[in-house]
Amino acid sequence: MLAAHLFTTIAVEGSAAMSTVAVPSLPPTASEDAESLRKALQGWRADKASLIGILCRRTASQRAAIRRAYAFLYREPLLNCFRYKLSRHHLLSVDFWKALILWTMDPAERDANLVHEAVKKKDEIYILVLIEVSCASTPDHLMAVRDIYRKLFSCSIEEDVASSPALQEPLKKMLVSLVSSYRYAGEHVDMDVAKLEAAQLSEAIREKQLQRDEVVRIISTRSKSQLRATFQQYKEDHGTDIGEDINGQCSSQFGRMLKSAVWCLTSPEKHFAQVIRYSILGLGTYEDLLTRVIVSRAEIDMKQIKQEYKARYKSAVTLDVAGDTSFGYRDMLLALVGSED
Amino acid sequence: MLAAHLFTTIAVEGSAAMSTVAVPSLPPTASEDAESLRKALQGWRADKASLIGILCRRTASQRAAIRRAYAFLYREPLLNCFRYKLSRHHLLSVDFWKALILWTMDPAERDANLVHEAVKKKDEIYILVLIEVSCASTPDHLMAVRDIYRKLFSCSIEEDVASSPALQEPLKKMLVSLVSSYRYAGEHVDMDVAKLEAAQLSEAIREKQLQRDEVVRIISTRSKSQLRATFQQYKEDHGTDIGEDINGQCSSQFGRMLKSAVWCLTSPEKHFAQVIRYSILGLGTYEDLLTRVIVSRAEIDMKQIKQEYKARYKSAVTLDVAGDTSFGYRDMLLALVGSED
Repeated sequence: MLAAHLFTTIAVEGSAAMSTVAVPSLPPTASEDAESLRKALQGWRADKASLIGILCRRTASQRAAIRRAYAFLYREPLLNCFRYKLSRHHLLSVDFWKALILWTMDPAERDANLVHEAVKKKDEIYILVLIEVSCASTPDHLMAVRDIYRKLFSCSIEEDVASSPALQEPLKKMLVSLVSSYRYAGEHVDMDVAKLEAAQLSEAIREKQLQRDEVVRIISTRSKSQLRATFQQYKEDHGTDIGEDINGQCSSQFGRMLKSAVWCLTSPEKHFAQVIRYSILGLGTYEDLLTRVIVSRAEIDMKQIKQEYKARYKSAVTLDVAGDTSFGYRDMLLALVGSED
Repeated sequence: MLAAHLFTTIAVEGSAAMSTVAVPSLPPTASEDAESLRKALQGWRADKASLIGILCRRTASQRAAIRRAYAFLYREPLLNCFRYKLSRHHLLSVDFWKALILWTMDPAERDANLVHEAVKKKDEIYILVLIEVSCASTPDHLMAVRDIYRKLFSCSIEEDVASSPALQEPLKKMLVSLVSSYRYAGEHVDMDVAKLEAAQLSEAIREKQLQRDEVVRIISTRSKSQLRATFQQYKEDHGTDIGEDINGQCSSQFGRMLKSAVWCLTSPEKHFAQVIRYSILGLGTYEDLLTRVIVSRAEIDMKQIKQEYKARYKSAVTLDVAGDTSFGYRDMLLALVGSED
């Protein structure tokens, strides 16, 4: 174990200050890392501690360089080696290998795969994947996901969502609009629009008419800055949080999904803290759900999610994860989530 | 005038074999071109023949290099010099300078500007801009237009279309879906889907129910290859062209715009030949319309458009353009359209 002072969270992408991935200030070269991974993969059990010690302490771009170096040195993709291990290992290790594969993938490719797996399913935990990828990502990341999805699956995300027999109207209409968006990503806000649209949303909530075209249009086309101003205006007008009001007044599936979209767009830490809690409190643990959240948010806003989790559930993510998962898989999640302050 | 053998149409972007821009096989460097342009811009009248002789014989990437070289050499953007000329010249030259500015711009930026100008207007010739940019472009070009639009105008295209008071439902719904699409761009086709959706479209046409969700979903999410197969299936089932049938059976504005979308998606030459004809036959000439089509299609499929025009109207684009436009502007359009074979 390296001394703590060797680790420092460095700027990666997006809100890197909120990353919990502890990258050493002087990491080995990508080729050295690839060689260490090759050694760690030898033998029937593989050296999970080494795999975690390397990959879970590297940024997305460092992991990309390691993938390239590995393919160059050993003439096979690193991910294929992981998939081979996954296919041959006993049940206890499945979650570990699945998480390691998702973490090692290019983030846009990972999300494209998660969306593809989710798009034909009815279950809300899969519908949430569509909402998370379309609303809790930056617009440019969503666009990268859409691009690679087309290349991997020979059709567009919006095409698959719009033609999915598993999804019903009016939810389908909202999901198609959300995954099709390419929002303005700057800070410019129009306060007149915020006032008008806060009132429109308020009327729809009070009349329990969330599926109105206006609601879907506002949520799926306005920029995150604009929506933040609109929701703030709503709070000033009513003294309550719009997400909580949607939840409280409209208990339909559409209402729950709309609330998730609202949170993913403007306070994703609330959404993801709730999903982590749900995945741990569930009968057993929803490992896929827990993996998805931790792998996809570790480099984005995991620090905020941990703070939100603590404030809301009076417990720590690390504590709850450690108590509810098994060796190997647990160590990997804990490496990504980082220590509690 | 340089000898014809010096000109050869070289590969640019998209379907470059259908470009009518005659690029010299050994063009001057970008800096030399920038110097020649500087000289041509001197004096009150400017040397239009030189401006045309240089810029209308360069590909989009060569024009980009010239813009960079000009800005580096003279510390001002080439386009600003053109805009200054436009602002000071008498009426006769307005069309020339406007066309030269559009041609010299980066194509994605040009389309973003055209969309922005069109989006708040009711007139069909402006609604057509939205359809042309969203349906007659490659998916990646549309994405580049959406990206630059956000940067230039601090909001997204779909946001402006969805909130435009000039557009009515159900047309607005279709336009929002069209501009939001990021279609699969490959050749993969599902023939079962083609058969099913040809039947769905046929039913909507016969029942004069074009605004159905199914119709908008098919037109706005399916890939161009898939739509080509679907429309071919329609032709085999009914012996008629789906575009003509939409036009014949449903004479509403929605029907006309849907037909334009269908043509832009799978046989853009038909659409643009018709628009050129309309712009010339109109009272006077719709110069903005004519400029837009020629400038935006010269490097894409102008050869095909000319063939279609000849087959359909028993006249040549060059002849009709020459007969209906004035000096300077005419020379520029003719340089872009190329000679008749």
